[in-house]
Formats: sequence, structure tokens, C-alpha cells
Amino acid sequence: MLPSSSGETSVNAVPVASEFEHLREGQILFTYLHLAASAELTQALVERKVAAVAYETVQLPDGRLPLLAPMSEIAGRMAPHVAAHLLEKEYGGRGILMGGVSGVRPAKVFVLGAGMAGSNAAWIAAGMEAEVIVVDTNLDRLRFIDQIHKGRIITLMSDRLTLEQRVREADVVIGSVLVPGARAPKLITQEMIRSMRAGAVAIDIAIDQGGCMETSRMTTHSDPTYVVDGVVHYCVGNMPGAVPNTSTYALTNVTLPYALRIAANGLEDSVRDDATLALGVNVIAGEVTNPGVAEAHGMTLTPLSAIVAGLS
Amino acid sequence: MLPSSSGETSVNAVPVASEFEHLREGQILFTYLHLAASAELTQALVERKVAAVAYETVQLPDGRLPLLAPMSEIAGRMAPHVAAHLLEKEYGGRGILMGGVSGVRPAKVFVLGAGMAGSNAAWIAAGMEAEVIVVDTNLDRLRFIDQIHKGRIITLMSDRLTLEQRVREADVVIGSVLVPGARAPKLITQEMIRSMRAGAVAIDIAIDQGGCMETSRMTTHSDPTYVVDGVVHYCVGNMPGAVPNTSTYALTNVTLPYALRIAANGLEDSVRDDATLALGVNVIAGEVTNPGVAEAHGMTLTPLSAIVAGLS
Amino acid sequence: MLPSSSGETSVNAVPVASEFEHLREGQILFTYLHLAASAELTQALVERKVAAVAYETVQLPDGRLPLLAPMSEIAGRMAPHVAAHLLEKEYGGRGILMGGVSGVRPAKVFVLGAGMAGSNAAWIAAGMEAEVIVVDTNLDRLRFIDQIHKGRIITLMSDRLTLEQRVREADVVIGSVLVPGARAPKLITQEMIRSMRAGAVAIDIAIDQGGCMETSRMTTHSDPTYVVDGVVHYCVGNMPGAVPNTSTYALTNVTLPYALRIAANGLEDSVRDDATLALGVNVIAGEVTNPGVAEAHGMTLTPLSAIVAGLS
Amino acid sequence: MLPSSSGETSVNAVPVASEFEHLREGQILFTYLHLAASAELTQALVERKVAAVAYETVQLPDGRLPLLAPMSEIAGRMAPHVAAHLLEKEYGGRGILMGGVSGVRPAKVFVLGAGMAGSNAAWIAAGMEAEVIVVDTNLDRLRFIDQIHKGRIITLMSDRLTLEQRVREADVVIGSVLVPGARAPKLITQEMIRSMRAGAVAIDIAIDQGGCMETSRMTTHSDPTYVVDGVVHYCVGNMPGAVPNTSTYALTNVTLPYALRIAANGLEDSVRDDATLALGVNVIAGEVTNPGVAEAHGMTLTPLSAIVAGLS
Amino acid sequence: MLPSSSGETSVNAVPVASEFEHLREGQILFTYLHLAASAELTQALVERKVAAVAYETVQLPDGRLPLLAPMSEIAGRMAPHVAAHLLEKEYGGRGILMGGVSGVRPAKVFVLGAGMAGSNAAWIAAGMEAEVIVVDTNLDRLRFIDQIHKGRIITLMSDRLTLEQRVREADVVIGSVLVPGARAPKLITQEMIRSMRAGAVAIDIAIDQGGCMETSRMTTHSDPTYVVDGVVHYCVGNMPGAVPNTSTYALTNVTLPYALRIAANGLEDSVRDDATLALGVNVIAGEVTNPGVAEAHGMTLTPLSAIVAGLS
Amino acid sequence: MLPSSSGETSVNAVPVASEFEHLREGQILFTYLHLAASAELTQALVERKVAAVAYETVQLPDGRLPLLAPMSEIAGRMAPHVAAHLLEKEYGGRGILMGGVSGVRPAKVFVLGAGMAGSNAAWIAAGMEAEVIVVDTNLDRLRFIDQIHKGRIITLMSDRLTLEQRVREADVVIGSVLVPGARAPKLITQEMIRSMRAGAVAIDIAIDQGGCMETSRMTTHSDPTYVVDGVVHYCVGNMPGAVPNTSTYALTNVTLPYALRIAANGLEDSVRDDATLALGVNVIAGEVTNPGVAEAHGMTLTPLSAIVAGLS
Repeated sequence: MLPSSSGETSVNAVPVASEFEHLREGQILFTYLHLAASAELTQALVERKVAAVAYETVQLPDGRLPLLAPMSEIAGRMAPHVAAHLLEKEYGGRGILMGGVSGVRPAKVFVLGAGMAGSNAAWIAAGMEAEVIVVDTNLDRLRFIDQIHKGRIITLMSDRLTLEQRVREADVVIGSVLVPGARAPKLITQEMIRSMRAGAVAIDIAIDQGGCMETSRMTTHSDPTYVVDGVVHYCVGNMPGAVPNTSTYALTNVTLPYALRIAANGLEDSVRDDATLALGVNVIAGEVTNPGVAEAHGMTLTPLSAIVAGLS
Repeated sequence: MLPSSSGETSVNAVPVASEFEHLREGQILFTYLHLAASAELTQALVERKVAAVAYETVQLPDGRLPLLAPMSEIAGRMAPHVAAHLLEKEYGGRGILMGGVSGVRPAKVFVLGAGMAGSNAAWIAAGMEAEVIVVDTNLDRLRFIDQIHKGRIITLMSDRLTLEQRVREADVVIGSVLVPGARAPKLITQEMIRSMRAGAVAIDIAIDQGGCMETSRMTTHSDPTYVVDGVVHYCVGNMPGAVPNTSTYALTNVTLPYALRIAANGLEDSVRDDATLALGVNVIAGEVTNPGVAEAHGMTLTPLSAIVAGLS
Repeated sequence: MLPSSSGETSVNAVPVASEFEHLREGQILFTYLHLAASAELTQALVERKVAAVAYETVQLPDGRLPLLAPMSEIAGRMAPHVAAHLLEKEYGGRGILMGGVSGVRPAKVFVLGAGMAGSNAAWIAAGMEAEVIVVDTNLDRLRFIDQIHKGRIITLMSDRLTLEQRVREADVVIGSVLVPGARAPKLITQEMIRSMRAGAVAIDIAIDQGGCMETSRMTTHSDPTYVVDGVVHYCVGNMPGAVPNTSTYALTNVTLPYALRIAANGLEDSVRDDATLALGVNVIAGEVTNPGVAEAHGMTLTPLSAIVAGLS
Repeated sequence: MLPSSSGETSVNAVPVASEFEHLREGQILFTYLHLAASAELTQALVERKVAAVAYETVQLPDGRLPLLAPMSEIAGRMAPHVAAHLLEKEYGGRGILMGGVSGVRPAKVFVLGAGMAGSNAAWIAAGMEAEVIVVDTNLDRLRFIDQIHKGRIITLMSDRLTLEQRVREADVVIGSVLVPGARAPKLITQEMIRSMRAGAVAIDIAIDQGGCMETSRMTTHSDPTYVVDGVVHYCVGNMPGAVPNTSTYALTNVTLPYALRIAANGLEDSVRDDATLALGVNVIAGEVTNPGVAEAHGMTLTPLSAIVAGLS
Repeated sequence: MLPSSSGETSVNAVPVASEFEHLREGQILFTYLHLAASAELTQALVERKVAAVAYETVQLPDGRLPLLAPMSEIAGRMAPHVAAHLLEKEYGGRGILMGGVSGVRPAKVFVLGAGMAGSNAAWIAAGMEAEVIVVDTNLDRLRFIDQIHKGRIITLMSDRLTLEQRVREADVVIGSVLVPGARAPKLITQEMIRSMRAGAVAIDIAIDQGGCMETSRMTTHSDPTYVVDGVVHYCVGNMPGAVPNTSTYALTNVTLPYALRIAANGLEDSVRDDATLALGVNVIAGEVTNPGVAEAHGMTLTPLSAIVAGLS
Repeated sequence: MLPSSSGETSVNAVPVASEFEHLREGQILFTYLHLAASAELTQALVERKVAAVAYETVQLPDGRLPLLAPMSEIAGRMAPHVAAHLLEKEYGGRGILMGGVSGVRPAKVFVLGAGMAGSNAAWIAAGMEAEVIVVDTNLDRLRFIDQIHKGRIITLMSDRLTLEQRVREADVVIGSVLVPGARAPKLITQEMIRSMRAGAVAIDIAIDQGGCMETSRMTTHSDPTYVVDGVVHYCVGNMPGAVPNTSTYALTNVTLPYALRIAANGLEDSVRDDATLALGVNVIAGEVTNPGVAEAHGMTLTPLSAIVAGLS
């Protein structure tokens, strides 16, 4: 099943309860699943013996998550757009133009995290003529940004002192730090948020993993913001849902090759040939094969190799 | 009087009726006035013998309007931000990300006019990674953009055929054409708007001069958009009012030197020394000195030189 | 016969029949060989017990072919030059200048493939101020181009629909797709070519591997073009042969280190130390050691390890 | 008469003898004329009382020739394309790739003149990754190039020693120096050409004004090159004729506004209003009004003001 | 007389007392003279009836000083080099690297003045990867920098508050403000200098006009720095003297054309043809013709037109 | 022990003899050690049973030395600054400005080595507007520079002929070639240095590994230069010591994570978990565990696994 959507602004759709009746043995469900968060759906898939392959656990040998990357790229690029909008007085912002104008200072944008989302956020913010600082603890990532942007984006090693100082000065904070397969760390504290000027903007791209700011709580595209300590917060879950046209193409670009292979060779042969895809199988033949899912719901874990013979 | 504001989102404030009583002889009113549009205010200034110097008619020998330029710069830079926001599905847009992502096409942005507003709009849209075309009938302006942006922004001579073709293909149209001291020409017709795809966005920066699209009608920051033929229109008057922090600095940067000179030397000496400022005087000593204002209200025109002796 | 030349302008020379008599036991032949395409040469090398190491099968563990890469780089950079030339009316083209000029649109260049050849072609075409789109199915390659060129080159995922649409609109199509060790896929169909405007230009860099356009047939530097369906085709085998000065340096840069090591340590020790070079050995001690060559001519395959003891 | 063409590769067409019979009183001929070079055509226009307005003498108060500029822009951008082509071994060149490749030096391109043609030539050559030096005696022009290209293009003051040294080292020389309304100075001597390496390329964009190299003689698109002292020369008159699609648009962009005004207001009123256009009138009412034309053919010069009353 | 030098590091040489005896009637002295600063030299030139043309008063109609500009360009580009050196611990600096490195912040460079010197200083500092702010009161200059550098250099309108705030935060202050023909204003106060961190660096390019910092006093290349309030000051007069090779070429590029014309046509004819050069004549035929010089020494001013007949 | 310093300009401090008495069993010494160069210190560490972990032998599986990289980055970026300074006449240089000015050629900078130090040196030199050539024998590194800098920096394969030719023409030579764990090769010969022009500058960043120029001998920050054959040499050991503020942050960024882990888990557990860190252990429990150190001093080598049980 390719990305579909029950609502207009969604590009990825976990089946909802009313749809469970359509699940049946022999089906292959290939989409975002986030089963650790839903015992009910997990149970339905197990009972109905659906083969469920989750986008979010397809993983390359080097740890990258290829079916999540395009969504991070989109969310990263959207964040400075959103910030520009929220900086308008009407929406609670400081009334500052992202790029300033000749003779008037631009906004200071602080990006936490130099991964796919963060580096794209920094890059677009720089394109909008803002002053941009990006921090990370991974020096290689900072170095790549420095090489490409040649000083246009300032790179700093992330530590508590740097966060405190730079968040305080920022007109916009974009949080994009996440730990794969775990809740994002709350690196930006409420105290840091409180130190910001009234009308500053905080965007938490990591909200789908719980958020990387203490003051974050998930919002929706229809009611995207709230204010804490004078700082406008935007913590919309599934940011790419705002641009479904772009997101659908981006997602299909990466999922379609897998879908075609599964369609052509069947799921078993496909996972035999491709360890990356094999990691995507969460439930199959009535068994849970993903450790995180099994653990989350106290269910028995069955290794995929016990079900699919000849797995590499 | 420096830029002030009766409402939060405004950086330029024409006196309103309730304020007329504060006007009195001997005062110098130095602000945006747009008297041709208000017989009532003009009358009040004449009766009360206020010396009224309008930002919008201060004009350099080469025809540039130095006190309007920063506002055009701001509106131009804001336009792509606004477009990115309105392209979101939630706000009626096509659900397209301005810069696309790797492997997915960016939005096509079409900018009508390569003056201060248009060139800034094109530049920021390119910084947001959009595909950008800018048209004008002034080849020298297009050449400067081409030299600076080295092919990153496509420049085209403006003609009807080009407009029809490029507007139809565009995801975003930004209209910034204006004729100084006159209503903006309606170069983008309703037919062109109708040819655009549903969810495309049209922004009319020239709305303060009447707009350069047939489908434009002025809106406000609190209710900024409406839809015509499936195209989301944003025609907010006084766009810079959305970012009053930036706008106030930008305006003060250009007006303060004049204000200081008027304060130091008095208005008469100041206009004697500076023909640029002299053109700003619209009403003085109970006489209308600006031809456009006199004509608009059928009032008698008195040359400034008849009032201020020794004018160069 | 792939890249060869009897005269000065050749950078790579497969031995021709008249030269076979100079081959003798003990010789090491280190050059482009393409033995699968020549039973006669293969036979001669076997009979004369020459040790034949082919540039084109020297291969890194990650699959890259280091002795082919510089030739792809050159062909890629040449392609936009060639296109600019062929777009001239005199040579059958549409009479369009690659970069247009201020106020006149540039040429649209469509590059199929974002590998070494394609990415260089896209880059130089952008430098010539053309509008450039590059497609590939490898998202990581597209992402690198996007990061480096920051939106100046549009990257799209390659699929049939995209090809049809973008080829039709293109003034120039540059095909650079190839599958290592196999014939290039004919991704650009005759129908797509037919949809292009008269005087458009098609350049097939992959022609040495059979070409990636249905309408491609190999041509020579002395008679480089032909017209199909109004589209000027340039499918010269061995494009780098046009710039032998540059090509010789580029090739020597990568082959000389191997040659020096072979000269210093002998071939056997060299291949023992270097699995990359070992893959280059096609014929040795009268035995064929390359699977493709053996298969092509129905000859017996002897593993290199059976001849060179202690091979890693 | 807008740009038309009697031959396929021409965008500007001086009437030829066989067309003289179509000339008649009352006609306005608005095109490139170069009457100083043709007594016969001048005579025909005088006799037939045609009003002849020459593109090449329409001149702005600051000396710029607005109807020549787009042609210089095109010729300048074409020159590096042509150079890349002629550097191929097949066409007599040194076999060097303009941009070199990683690890191999690029071509050295020397551009004489930093005006419209020269600056465009330098810019595109840099985009093709060549090493580029541009010389001029106008420091302001060099400074603008330096500001825009930030050291990517080396700018040098033009003097004899610099020419000798830099031409000798160059792989490509592009000559674009001209003196408006006069023969181009022969700044590049035969001795300098002789000092270049065999297979170097010399392109004389100024050939329409007689050329700026001693070794230049005009060639055609169908037989564009010849060799002097081992250096491949390209001295095609009317270079933009090679790209008529682009050239026609570029020319129309600048001439159409004049043509429309002449059509709307008649020629007399048009020249009364516009001194720039007035300078374009070479022959009118049977009189020669351009000093250069009168002098070239020993004809009587009549001031335009003697014919058109009320000329400013 | 072309630029010569009595000392190794000087490119411009006012005649010194011991050389006066070589001055004689009929000579034309064409060099930097700064006569307002030397009654003795002025007297010698008057008495010996030398025609003295001063580089520093040759002035274009738009007020630019073409023979000073290259020196400003050089000093501006040198300033960030000097700053990088002085920031080293060994030389008293803060021990900060101009461009920082990946993960470590760069130096903050504050440039006062966006003219020839200041814009070059800002540009090179940005090239060294520093954070750069440039201020000026001329918005058009700031706008040009913003257009060219696209947000890489932050431009701010200069006012006291901005100076105080930005100087305090800066690691490097480069002062390049000057008023043509007058002492530079002391815009950077001692208090501002005192607010800087120990080891910060202050460079006063305007020192030849008296300096634009209260704490500036002229130093020499052999003893270039001193410390005030912990801030390392570099206020070397004639900065371009440090790079005489570059400076001599730069100066000759602009002076030689004048010198050649004077040599060819004599001084009188030259100044008749060229009002720019005429302004350079300070003393001629025993009379002082420059107002500033006459005033400085209480000597009689004779208009040049009284000496050179037919002056335009 | 984090980086500390006994002298002001040092960021890395090997313990000196007077400090040996503070060494005692149970201590963990984590800093730069260079024990192969000091039998005395090695002996002290062995005797006092200190656990000595050397920054310079911490090594990633791919051979990179993560705790040396930031120092190379700093030295590389400093080199062009130093060159600009030494090119001044006062300091013995040719009196050439790195970036030249409009109309005057820039300095030619030749960088030997495209690793961390060399690529940073080339990049900053280009930012200073110099002409820059970088050579290496690693084509992948050159390709990356070419991709990022798009022809702005010329990349050449390193060979003797290229070195001879390019060093001779250079105004500045920056040597940054080193072989990890070995003495740097003396690729730049005295003969090459002799071929340079008087006042050229040679900087040997590899001096800490013995230098890559025959004429190099280590100097200090307080007496940094000497002249050989007219060429100013700068061969300061520990270049980053000049900018201790930047260097300390850069070093801490990479060492602190290791230090924190050692502090939290103890050294034994830390090296068990991390093979990269394990390679850093040179002396532990009275035994030498680093082969190079053991060999240098003829001491017994004990494998770390003999001391720390369970080492991976």
C-alpha cells in the first residue's frame, strides 16, 4: 500500500480502527505503522496474519532510515517558512523580517541538530538571508555544512552553555535533534525558552519523536501554535502533511522501488535479498518480529529468520 | 513626526479624523499622507495651516522615491514567505514546498516587475530554492539581476504572450509592477488567473497603488486572503506592517536624516537646500503645493516657490 | 572497437591485428582491452602468453571503476560544449544560445543520469547559464548535487513519465546512464525523441556501452552527427579522444601509480597486494581469468588464484 | 521593418540590390544599415526618399548603443562555446578541455575588453571552469567584474606588455575591443599570435568593426575558421546569426518599443520626443543626416533639424 | 613623475626638502602632494614656478577621487590580513582565528564605512570566513553590498547606538570612514574602545585623514601597533606601502593615462580638455590655484582659468 | 587531563621533566604525548605506572586521526593569513597583496596536499582572492575540492614536474603533506625553493612531522621566520598555539566526549567499548602498549589485550 491519506493534509496513514476489518491474511501492509504506539493495531495485524512492513524501521547497514529521510528533508525546509510566517506581528511574532533589509539586521535563526532536517533548515534560512547558527555534537556533519556553505552558516559544537547563550539571543529556534528509535532528548529547557525575547518563535521538528524542547506539545495543522513564556511554539506532528503534493512524490521516490520489488518477487524473496527491507518487517504470519514492538506490548518476539527460511 | 502607528501592525500612519483636532499652525507633519486619496485630511491641513511633507512625494532627481524604497524592499522580501505559507494545503494552496526536495520539483515562482520590490522577491524566492522567472520591460534592470544571479533567476522581457504563458505555468505569481504616481496597470488579467492551477497563489504587492492584477482587491493582515478561480489571492495593503520591528528601523534609516535637518534648520531652509525634500511639501501655510493633490480635489495649486522665497 | 586511434590524438589504444606479432610471452599489456568484444585479440593474448590487464575491469571494492572515471568526467564536461555548438543553426540546431541573454530564455538541458558523467554535464551546463534538470534513480546522488548546487540544478527522480515530459520540453538531452558491465538501458525511446522540437539536440554519452537512447548509433569525431525525427544526434564513441591533451593527463593520473607498482614489484606481487588491480587481469600465462571474457568467447575460465599463488 | 532575414542564419538584414526596387517614398526603414559601407544603398535610399533609421546609430546620451548591446551580449556568450569546440583536436585545436578535469589543468582564456561582449565572454568561460583573465583600460568595468565574480575572473589593466605576456600563455584569446563608430584598434599583433602555442584559438568578436587582431579577416558561419601561425582563427561576421532564435528575441526586445512608437506617432513626432532615436536617422526626405555617412560617400550633410521642425 | 619612493615601503613620495633644489621652472610635478600640510613645499613650488598636479585633488564630476581609489582598495583588502595577524596571541590578540573552524565560532569583524576601503575590507573578511557587519549612513552603498553578497555580510545603518553595541561585541574593528577633503570624524570613541574585550583589534584605515577613532595615532610599518585599553591598535599611515609591488601597479594603472596625455599634449592643453585633471593643479606659474592650499597657508588664490586660457 | 598549557601560546602540553614528580599510579594522562620522541617521559610513565592515552594515536577504523584533525584545520586556515603578512615588504616579502586589486594580479598560492590542512588552506586563500592551485596524489580529494569550489581552485595531480613548475611560479607555497605516523616526505626540494622569486613565502605546515620541504627547520611563534635562497620560510611548530582561544575550543570539542566517557566508565571499560580509543593507549600498568613507542626506545611491547581483559 502506497502512501495514502484519510485526511487532506496527511501523506502517511496508519490504518485506523474502522479500517481493521479490511485487513486479512495474505495482505502485505507497507506504510508508516509506529506499532509500538498502538497495541490495538499490532493486535489486529497479528490476529489477521497481515504481513506488516513499517517504513520507519527499514534501515540501511549504516543506520540511516531511507524512508524517513525525505520527510525530514521536507520538515527541515518548511521550518524557516513557518518561522517567517510566525515572526509576523499578526501571528504573535516579534515583527521581524527573516532576512532584514539593507541597513536593518536580519533575524537570528538557531538550528539544533545538523542531520537531514537541521541541515536543510539551516540552508533555507540562509537562503532567506537570515543569520544562521547550527549546532550538533557530530563534528563531521558540521564540517560538511561548513565546506558547502563556506562560512555563510556558523557551525558550533553543541553543549549546554552554547545552547543557553544562543537560544537566548535567537529570534527563531528550530529543534531537529532526535535519537533514532528513541524519544528525542529535551535539550532545550523551559528556562532557555523563558530567556528568549517576547515574540520569538520555537519550532520543534522532532515532535513526532516526542520533541526536543521541554515546552513542546504536539499540535495540528489546523491549530498549529501556542505561546509559552511569550515564545510562539509550532510543534505540528507530521509537518510534511502541509505539502502533500511534494511529500507524496518525495515518499514515492523512495518507497516505490521497494513496493515494485515486493510486488514482483513476493515479500519473502524480497527480504531474503535485502537485509534493509527485512528490518522493516514488524509483524508477519501472526508473529511479531520487531523487538521494539514486542517489548512495547509485552508480546513474544519471533525472529524473522524463524519464519522466512534462508534469510541472510 | 516620526513613523508611529495607531494600530499594532502599522508602521505608517496617516492622521485619522479623530486626530485632526491636534493639528495646528506651526506644526510640521512629516509622514506618509496620500492626500490625493483624502479630501478631508487635505482640507484639515489647509485650514489648520499645517506644513505637511509627504514621504511618498519626496523624490530624487532621477525619479527614485527614497522614502518608499525600504517599504518596497520589505514587501518584496515578504512575498515569497507569504507564498510558501499559502502554498500549504491548510491555507488553500497546492500543497507544494517552495524549494521542493532532492528528486522532487520546486515551485515555479513568477515575478512581474524587476524594481525594488520585484528584484527582492525574486532573490529571496531563489534563496528558498524555487524556480524563479522575473519579467520587466526595463532591460537594464533585468541585466543587473542576470549579472548578480548568474542564471539562477531567469529574466524575460515582459510582453502579453510571455505573461499568459508564464502565469499559466506558475505555482506562485508575485505582481510588483507600478507606475510612480499613477495607478498600477492591470497587466495580469482575470483570464490569466483563470488559467492557473487550483491552489496556485497570487500576491499583489502593488495593491497600495490599486494592484496590477484584475482580480486584486485590498485585504488586511487580519483577513489577508480570498480565492478567485481557485487561485489564493493575497493583496494586503501595507504589507510591511506585518513586520513593524524591521519596518520601523528601515523607515527611520531613511527619514531620520531629513527629520534631523528639518529640526535643526527649520522646514524653509531645509527645502531651500534640498530640492528632493521640497517635492515632499504637499500643503504649507494654508496652500496646496502638490499638483496631484490640487488636481485630485479641485483645489488651487500654489507653487512652493511662491511661499518659500529663494527656492532653488 | 572502442577508443582507439592510430594517430596522435589517441589516449587509449587496443592493439590492432597488425600489431599482434609484437606480443610475446613475458609482456604485460596494461591498457583498455574490451576483450569480450574481440575473440581475435583474446586468442592472440592467450597464445602468446601475454599478461593482459584491462583498465576497464580494474574495480574498487565499492564497485567504482577508477580507470574509467576520468573519461566519464571528460565526456560529461564536453557534452554541454557539444550541445552549444550543435544548437547553432548552421549545424542543424534550433538556433538557441545555451545561456540565453538578459530578457531571453536560456536553453533547457535535460541530463539523464547523475553519475560521474551526468553530474559533470549538469554542472557545466549550469555554468553556461542554461536551465538544467538532472534525473537519476539514485536519490543520494541527486541529494549531493542539490547540496552543492543549492537549487541551481533541478533534481528529479527518474521515471518514465518524467522522462516523457522533460525530454519533450528539452532543447538538449544528454544521456549518461549506464549499468557497469552491461549494455546501457534504452531509457529514451524513439517516441520521446519524436516529441522534441525540430532542431533539438540529443547527445548519448553512454554510446560506448551501446547507448541509452533508442535512436542512438555510434558516430565518429570526423562525422559526429546525424538527424532522426528532426533531432540532431551526437553519439561519438570515445568522446575524450577529442581532447587528447586533457585526456592523456587525466588517464595517466590514475593509471601511472598502478604501472609504477607493476614495474617495481612485478605483476604477481602487485595483484597479491591489491585486489582492485587483480580484477584487472583478463589473460595471464595462456589462461583467461575474467569471467565475462571467457563466457563471451566460450573459453575456459581459470581463476587468477590458480595462477598467482597467495592471492588474497 | 523589424529584424528579418534573407538567409537562414541572419538576424539583421541590410537590403540587398535586388530589393531596392521595393523601396519607395513614405517608407520607414528601421534596421541595421551600415550605410557608410555602401554607397549604393545610401544612394538608393536618398533617391527613393526613404526614411532610413539605422539601429547602429541609435545612441543614448551616455554613449551606449542600446540596439547593438544585445548582439554584443550574444556574441560574447557564444565565444567561449566556439572556443571549446575549436580546441578539439578534430578542428585544429590543442585538444584541451575548457574546464580541465579534477587533477588536470583547465584552459587559459584571455579576454581583451571588459565591455558588454567581453564581460559576457569572461563570465561564461568561468562558468565552463576555465581559467579566465580579462583586460581593459577602463578600471570601473574591471572593478564591477571583480565585485561580482569575487576573484574568480582575474582583471588586469590592459597595456602592451600585459597583452604580450598573457596572449602568449593563453589557450584561447577572445578579442572584443572596439571603439564606437570607428574601426577597432589592432591591439593583438601578428607577433603576439605567433607567440602562441600551436592549436591555440583566437576569436575576434570585433570583426564587424574590422577586428582587433592583425591576423583577423572576416569569415562566415559556413566556413568559419582559418589558421595563421598555427593558431585557429574564428572571425565570423554577425556571430549572433548562428543563434537566430535567441537573437531575434533579443533584438525585438530592444527595437519593438521604438517601432511601436514610430507606428503610433509617426517618425517625425517620435524623433522630436526622443533624441536617442533621432540619432538613428541616417537618410530622410532625400537628404543624408548622418555625418559619418555623408563623409564616407562625399555627400552633402543636412542636419535633421533642417528637416524635422521643432527638434529638441 | 610617476610614483617613486625614497624608502622601500613607500609607493607615493612627496618631495622632501633635500630634493627641492631639483625643482625648476618648466617642470611638471605629478604625484601625491598634500600641500595643505606643508607650507615649505608649497612655497618651494611657487617660488620655483613648478606646475604641481596633486593626485589627491584630481576629482571626477561625481565627486570620486580616481587616483585615491586604488589605494583605498588596497588598504581595505589589507585590513583583514592585518587583523588576522594581530589576533594571534603572540602579537597581543585574543588568540582567535578569523574564520574559526567547524564547530568553533569565527571572529566578529565590524567595518565602519562602506566606501571603497570599507567594502573591500568587508568582502575579504567574509572570504576569510569571519562574521562581518558593515555600517554606513549611505543606504545605496549598503544596498549594493547586500545585493552582491546576498546576506553573507550584514549591513546596518550607522548610528551611535549601533556603533556602541557592535563595537563592544567585535573582535576586530576596521574604521574606514572619511570625509573627502576634511579630517575624518572620530566616530569610534575611547569609551567604545574601552568596552571591547582585551586582545581585540582596532585598525584605522582613515588615519591618513586623521583617523576615525579617538584612540588612533599614526604609526609606521616598522612599529605598527600600540595598545589602548587592552585593544591592539594598528594605525599605519600609507598602508599600501606594505605591498609596493601591488600598489605601484595599481597606482600606475590610474595615473599613467594622465601622464601620457600630459606628456603628449602639454599640461595646458590637457587641463583644457579635462576638468577632472584641471582640479589636480595646485600650483602653476608661481600661483596657488587650489582653494584648500591657499587657505591653509594664507596665500593668495588664483583661479586656474586666470592662467590657462580657454579653460572649460 | 584536558588540554592545558604551561605557556601562553600553547594548546597542547606534553609534561616536562619538572612535572614528572606529579605523575603517580592510578592517574590517567590524556593529552598529546609524542612518546616516540621522548625516552625520558616514556620511562617516567612506565615507572610511575601512569595510564597514558595519546591524542595523536587515537585512530578511527578508516585511518583518520580525529584528535589531530581540528589542529590541521586550524593550521591550514592560518597559513594564508601568515602568508599575507609575510608577503609585506617589511617582513621580507615581495610586497604583493594576496588578492591583488581590480586591474592588478593577485598572488599565486600553491598548496601541496589536499587533506584537512591543505584543503582549508586552499579554501581560505581563495577567499582572500588569491589565485590558488592545490595538488595531491589522491584524486578523490581533488575531486571533492573541484565539486565544492567549481573551478575557483585549480586542482592538479601531484608529480615532480608539476611541483617544479608550479613552485617556481608561486608567490606562496604552503606545504601540508604528511604520511600518518611517519616523517613527512621532503617533496619540495631546495632546488625548487631556489627557483622561486626573491621575497616569495614558504610555509611548512607539516613541520611537526619533520616538514615536507628540504629547507624547513622548526621555528617558534616568537621567532617564526628565516630566509633561504631569498625565500621567507615560516615553519612554526604547533601553529595552532597562535590562536589558543580557537584551538582550545576546537580540541575540547573532540576530546571532551572521550574524557567524559573515561571519567564515567573508567579507562578499561572505555577501551573495551571503543577500539578507536584503545589505540590511544601508549603506556599502562607499567607496560608500553604502542608499537612505535616500544620500537623507538627498544622497550618491550605488551599488547593492550594482555592488560585489559575482554578487549574487542
